[in-house]
Amino acid sequence: MTVAPGRDRPTSSFRRVAVIGTGLIGGSFALATQALDRVDEVVVHDNDPDSRARARVLGVGTRVADTIEDAVRGADLVVLAVPPHQLVAVASQVAPHLEVHALVTDVASVKSPLVAQVEAALHGHGAFIGGHPMAGSENSGVAAADPTLFQGATWLLTPTAATNDGDFSLLAGHVVAMGARILAVSPDEHDRLVAVASHLPQILASVLMDYAAALDGAPLRVAAGGFRDVTRVAASDPNLWVPILTDNRQSVLAALDGFVERLASLRAAVDEQAWDAVHVLLDNARTARRALPRRGLVAASVDVVVPIPDRPGALAEVTATMAEASINVEDVAMRHASDGARGSLILAVDGLDVAHRAQEALAGRGLRSHIERR
Amino acid sequence: MTVAPGRDRPTSSFRRVAVIGTGLIGGSFALATQALDRVDEVVVHDNDPDSRARARVLGVGTRVADTIEDAVRGADLVVLAVPPHQLVAVASQVAPHLEVHALVTDVASVKSPLVAQVEAALHGHGAFIGGHPMAGSENSGVAAADPTLFQGATWLLTPTAATNDGDFSLLAGHVVAMGARILAVSPDEHDRLVAVASHLPQILASVLMDYAAALDGAPLRVAAGGFRDVTRVAASDPNLWVPILTDNRQSVLAALDGFVERLASLRAAVDEQAWDAVHVLLDNARTARRALPRRGLVAASVDVVVPIPDRPGALAEVTATMAEASINVEDVAMRHASDGARGSLILAVDGLDVAHRAQEALAGRGLRSHIERR
Repeated sequence: MTVAPGRDRPTSSFRRVAVIGTGLIGGSFALATQALDRVDEVVVHDNDPDSRARARVLGVGTRVADTIEDAVRGADLVVLAVPPHQLVAVASQVAPHLEVHALVTDVASVKSPLVAQVEAALHGHGAFIGGHPMAGSENSGVAAADPTLFQGATWLLTPTAATNDGDFSLLAGHVVAMGARILAVSPDEHDRLVAVASHLPQILASVLMDYAAALDGAPLRVAAGGFRDVTRVAASDPNLWVPILTDNRQSVLAALDGFVERLASLRAAVDEQAWDAVHVLLDNARTARRALPRRGLVAASVDVVVPIPDRPGALAEVTATMAEASINVEDVAMRHASDGARGSLILAVDGLDVAHRAQEALAGRGLRSHIERR
Repeated sequence: MTVAPGRDRPTSSFRRVAVIGTGLIGGSFALATQALDRVDEVVVHDNDPDSRARARVLGVGTRVADTIEDAVRGADLVVLAVPPHQLVAVASQVAPHLEVHALVTDVASVKSPLVAQVEAALHGHGAFIGGHPMAGSENSGVAAADPTLFQGATWLLTPTAATNDGDFSLLAGHVVAMGARILAVSPDEHDRLVAVASHLPQILASVLMDYAAALDGAPLRVAAGGFRDVTRVAASDPNLWVPILTDNRQSVLAALDGFVERLASLRAAVDEQAWDAVHVLLDNARTARRALPRRGLVAASVDVVVPIPDRPGALAEVTATMAEASINVEDVAMRHASDGARGSLILAVDGLDVAHRAQEALAGRGLRSHIERR
């Protein structure tokens, strides 16, 4: 099929997709899109010639364009998969070359100020809907691009009052076709959500770690499983986090204030020995944590808890048993005794039936286990 | 060997040990002590006849005494492994029956008010040194008792100005013989340490979980790996935690205040856009978290990071490889991508040499991995 520039907006799906930026997310978007039969062409572009050369070698995109103009010309969907601080400039750059019907989206992890700025930068060329795939990996660059990266991921879309229903359906359909789940929220709500669900936990972990380390290091000598879990993300790279906190400053401050208010209430309850109130809070938290879906919107996840001895091979015995029974372990974690020396392996599986199968398989190997519903 | 009541204090090790309370910790203490050649007799007692019967069946203690008086008579070491709120009463009860030279210890998780109260309750009979093994398991009761429970655990001892050096050495020697590591601190310092290393993380996790759940549940729909890690301990039982917070109220309040002060500093830095200061805090926290020993005082732990595909058997393949190479995995965790759908398995092993062996074994199976030093 040949696509003529200036033709009408497609009604069922995008036929020609342009991806600007061939990092992990952009490269994976291109590969995932190439895997969809209904798309005719996926043109990619990166302003770095080396990245373009690697994309060609790796087959990322059905075509690698040397200029951004060439990439977006004729595209039904333009994905701006560039770092947040370049996003507005790149939008200005592509604007004059966009088809009238082109839909533009991005993948930045903060939305509220950016969405309005990108819309302004487009100057009425094309339409924009913000996007944020909650996916990634510790690896980066086009070499790590993976057509399955978004499978099972939650993809936040941030339509506004200006968003056309047809555009939204087309974009949502494309995202779902790549295997992700859609959560549509306003740009403000997006930033409020990620502030609470991602940025606040990072801050709490880092401040706790810094606080404990400053106390002569002694608390670290007795740091047990709970401390390790809470502080795990404190090992994250500040070079990634400072820009996120910069971009989402207002929502982060609001999330911090909301949290501190609740922490102050709990402090008052402990101070006043209002133990019933403390119990209620801990119990509410417990109920909510146990109900927390394991990934995205999957709510049926069940834990199989297997006490394991501290010796080589014990872990393998458990996981080999799962493999033989063809049970997909969705998540795995060690639940430590207070010193971390002994513990149980927690295997999250998809639903109670699978958990029962897991138990039977473990019992067949003489391994005790019990089931905990989340 | 017969032990006559009223004989001198042993100089090298305890010959006769009494354990009051046959729960998980008391039962494990008895079994671990029975495994030491140098101990002649381990008498256990529990005020619950059913527990005594189970202890007899399970061989917990070389003898099960029906009365507390009978249990402690002639004992060099008396371990009060009873719930904290019964500790002072039980100390009063045993006091008149103690040998002059008897050393008494406990296993309660809070120390500051209790140590003085227990010393007073003993009325000059025997000597008391507080103890707190940082060990346990999710199971409880004598049926879960395990002679290896304390191996690798940190055991806090809380000597005071009244503590005799010889007594301390004897108790420390016994604890080390059971495989634990000693950390000696004052009762006040003990409570301050556990408030920061254990009670504060629990509070932060519970308050964050409660806060996020109260916001219409929407943040939970995008909760990714970091949120899950930070809130994991929020699933703990309030019936265990309210008594701990009650007993350690003062230290918990102090830890909360110290934490909130630091959190307020970070909030101010974000508000004032003092990004250099934010970067410094995040970087300090990162350095400290990476230096955090995996268990107790082991500092040489190294992470082998193995990206794994999301399919049945992938986990087993990795752990089977470790087992075949006789590599003891000290800790295991999934590092999730932001949506939790894909990730890497983090295997903590004891030192860089072991990590290299692990990498070689994985490479032999075609599995990529990289090493991260903590």
